[in-house]
Amino acid sequence: MPRCKSCGKTADGYVLRHAKMHLCKECFIKYYERKVLNTILKHGMLKGARFIAVAVSGGKDSSALLRVLRKIAPELKMVAIHLNLGIAGYSDECQKTVEELCSQLDVNYVVYDLRREEGFSIPDFQDTPYGRRICGVCGTVKRYLLNKIAYRLGADRIATGHNLDDVVEILFELYLRGAVEELVRIRPVSWSTHPKMVHRIKPLIEMTEEENLYYSSATETPFTESKCPLGKGSRMMKRKELIALLEKNIQGFKHMLYKSHVKRILPKLEQSIEEPTLKECKLCGMPALKEICSYCKISSKVRKADVNQP
Amino acid sequence: MPRCKSCGKTADGYVLRHAKMHLCKECFIKYYERKVLNTILKHGMLKGARFIAVAVSGGKDSSALLRVLRKIAPELKMVAIHLNLGIAGYSDECQKTVEELCSQLDVNYVVYDLRREEGFSIPDFQDTPYGRRICGVCGTVKRYLLNKIAYRLGADRIATGHNLDDVVEILFELYLRGAVEELVRIRPVSWSTHPKMVHRIKPLIEMTEEENLYYSSATETPFTESKCPLGKGSRMMKRKELIALLEKNIQGFKHMLYKSHVKRILPKLEQSIEEPTLKECKLCGMPALKEICSYCKISSKVRKADVNQP
Repeated sequence: MPRCKSCGKTADGYVLRHAKMHLCKECFIKYYERKVLNTILKHGMLKGARFIAVAVSGGKDSSALLRVLRKIAPELKMVAIHLNLGIAGYSDECQKTVEELCSQLDVNYVVYDLRREEGFSIPDFQDTPYGRRICGVCGTVKRYLLNKIAYRLGADRIATGHNLDDVVEILFELYLRGAVEELVRIRPVSWSTHPKMVHRIKPLIEMTEEENLYYSSATETPFTESKCPLGKGSRMMKRKELIALLEKNIQGFKHMLYKSHVKRILPKLEQSIEEPTLKECKLCGMPALKEICSYCKISSKVRKADVNQP
Repeated sequence: MPRCKSCGKTADGYVLRHAKMHLCKECFIKYYERKVLNTILKHGMLKGARFIAVAVSGGKDSSALLRVLRKIAPELKMVAIHLNLGIAGYSDECQKTVEELCSQLDVNYVVYDLRREEGFSIPDFQDTPYGRRICGVCGTVKRYLLNKIAYRLGADRIATGHNLDDVVEILFELYLRGAVEELVRIRPVSWSTHPKMVHRIKPLIEMTEEENLYYSSATETPFTESKCPLGKGSRMMKRKELIALLEKNIQGFKHMLYKSHVKRILPKLEQSIEEPTLKECKLCGMPALKEICSYCKISSKVRKADVNQP
């Protein structure tokens, strides 16, 4: 039976493969919380923050996020935002988990029901030209609505549960495509450049999927193990499998690629790529790169004009 | 039996996997020579060139290079340079192949025997601290000597047989390490920034290993199929296997990574990374980044002071 590297007790199954380290449950929890705090401090994520909105889907990552933030910053005003995406056999389970989670952690929460508030749900995109890249569209919808809700609530930070695996998957894709304008936006913190844009922080960006799963389980935090049925077999899932293969061949691959990006390549790219100036969308008034923001562009394809429209 | 995509005749085994294309022997040769010419023109590799030195090891890549350059630029003054690296059971076979190659193509050549001229051979590094990264050391030795010989001969270009697989393997490594100063040096052409440095060009940078092998075989150009015994199981070889795996999963991976680097990322990095100023090495007088050039640094570890020293 392996021993905990930290306290010497029996280590009951927590193996940090990238660090070749066994830890017992208690020491793992300490390690995890210390590491997240370190990420937060290193990037000044909560410097001057008064009110933080935490995006919670009900999955292992965002459940871990809510708990660790509550632990690290117990005094900070906090609200959880949950988007019910209207995916049959999945979204309602997620919502129930979030309700349980927030009540356990004693955090106020907002549930925003996409169908009720916006007149469409994510599966509606399946019958549009966006059907083949539904994960991308869903990401745009979530990013837009989280910002809008957090802005209206008066929050000065949005925290999301993006983990190391998510970020490395995107980095791999963007480096391969040479998408330099998008690469410079992959950062631990996206500071706002528009009055209606809330600062976005990713406190779990250095934690692997596996670590978040361990933490949620070890702390008995409610989370759902269900996966989104629309994401199955997606390009993103295939890339993640490929990255797992790379990690198996090059131990530490994910941590290396992330660190090389953030510490070495990103600062150089930032010097030669201008930050784009955000305008206001002509339709909704929220921040936009073009005349019409990407949310208004894509939602116009599915919005049922008669249902709950302003 | 598949048909040649170009002429419709039976295609006898030339499959360009990345382009999903079958070609007959004659059309493959035309395709190959046109593509190399295109690379040369696109990057102005031979603009104003009067005298080109071609590095030939005797392997498939450099044999293909010498032939295709002879075909594309038959009027250009040309010399082949072969370094005999003193690797038992390998180097002498390479040298014989080069002699045969140059006599078939009617190209003047210089054989530079490392042991005779420099007092050491590549295997001598095995017993030094450089033993574990002997491929890297060999690369430094070759780069240095090729430049010195080409410079003394009065050549204004050095052409090397680096292929797409070589370059992608290095790019993968450097992006993973975030080695930005080294990344900006991975270019189709390295224009000289010092009077004693000869412009370096890589005309085969867009051709795969497999294409070079096809071309050498199809044109009955002499080349050796032996692999360097010192390179077996090296980090470089392992990375190449990994890249083959990536190519299998993401068709066109190698071409994509190369193009993204050269067209999109490199120009941005170049804007924020200064070209280092080359000095002259205090020992040998050749271009150097530091007081002592890397060749003098590493060769001092193996040089037998009494053998053929100036």
